[in-house]
Amino acid sequence: MQSMTPREDVVRNLLSQPSNLSKMNTPSKIQMKPGNMLNPTPVVMVSCGETPDEYNIITVAWTGTLCSDPPMCYISVRPERHSYPILKERKQFVINLVNEQLAAVTDWCGVRSGKKYNKFLETNLTPVRGSVVKAPMIYESPVNLECEVTEIVPLGTHDMFIAKVVAVHADPRYMDKKTGALDLKRANLVAYSHGQYYTLGKILGKFGFSVEKKKK
Amino acid sequence: MQSMTPREDVVRNLLSQPSNLSKMNTPSKIQMKPGNMLNPTPVVMVSCGETPDEYNIITVAWTGTLCSDPPMCYISVRPERHSYPILKERKQFVINLVNEQLAAVTDWCGVRSGKKYNKFLETNLTPVRGSVVKAPMIYESPVNLECEVTEIVPLGTHDMFIAKVVAVHADPRYMDKKTGALDLKRANLVAYSHGQYYTLGKILGKFGFSVEKKKK
Repeated sequence: MQSMTPREDVVRNLLSQPSNLSKMNTPSKIQMKPGNMLNPTPVVMVSCGETPDEYNIITVAWTGTLCSDPPMCYISVRPERHSYPILKERKQFVINLVNEQLAAVTDWCGVRSGKKYNKFLETNLTPVRGSVVKAPMIYESPVNLECEVTEIVPLGTHDMFIAKVVAVHADPRYMDKKTGALDLKRANLVAYSHGQYYTLGKILGKFGFSVEKKKK
Repeated sequence: MQSMTPREDVVRNLLSQPSNLSKMNTPSKIQMKPGNMLNPTPVVMVSCGETPDEYNIITVAWTGTLCSDPPMCYISVRPERHSYPILKERKQFVINLVNEQLAAVTDWCGVRSGKKYNKFLETNLTPVRGSVVKAPMIYESPVNLECEVTEIVPLGTHDMFIAKVVAVHADPRYMDKKTGALDLKRANLVAYSHGQYYTLGKILGKFGFSVEKKKK
């Protein structure tokens, strides 16, 4: 790869004399309390429950993909949350991706509890049936991932629910009419970073762009 | 919460007669092969290795926060990757957040292997010493999370490395001079979604904005 800076000698020197590395630490970076500074994160609405009186929606940013094949993901949830015993008993949930239009309702589902509110009724989000799990999918979400819990791992404030993705549903509006492929660029998904909801901004490149040969 | 749509009767009807839910499924959403459609995700450079000849950088999007307290996160890595045995043996790594300026080099570290390249030398990213782990931090990254692996969970194509965040370092440029607080809005972090690198776009609100009382 082409050098980004004319600093090759500096890096070479650091690598050849590792004792030099520590000299660069203190002045260059400020050490903070260990914390959750991994940003940005996804932000999704997780729907759960087997029957309408049990249905709930919980907003989650501690979520991610764990494995490509089989497709697996996780959500981390505090035991105090209304959804926690539902998730633990039913071992199923749906991850509903969030677009710009859903940002406010997603935030609302994150700050209000299912103990007090029937969230589908309050938000008028539409529950629809998935193909595998009994938990409802949110119709308004651009993409729904039906998930089955394989393991629950207590970690501290949060338990991690490890799950298999058993079905995926997408809004046909985001399908390319020619290829039939899902084009998520059109979905206006929302990211979460350090307490703020963001739209996705400009595209910097696609995977592999740094080694792509330019077309003549 | 105020209704987003005048559809309260529809939702109420669906909830009272759950057999109606299934009728809405097939025509409204297209079912796809189960897969990793959880988007957007973070994208980070993970640095590992104890000695300069072992140092490597691997780009990871299968990463996230697992627990708030203790602060814990994970990275998922394929066993075939050059970094895998290093991570497995050393049980330490650093998560280096990625900003717009680092997008190309992050992509490069994701498509090239440490088997063929000394990535610090090729990219001229600067290795600096952390305060706890022996793995090098990347100086150019706005935030570095030092991590110690607590468990390795084989899942399929990927193994999940569960880790504690034992130290965090931030570039003082992103600290608010008055409050001393980290202001990540200034860091131009990058998100990854469905194969594309994105800047963060406009702020839609901060956590809790949907219930915030407007100032008079």
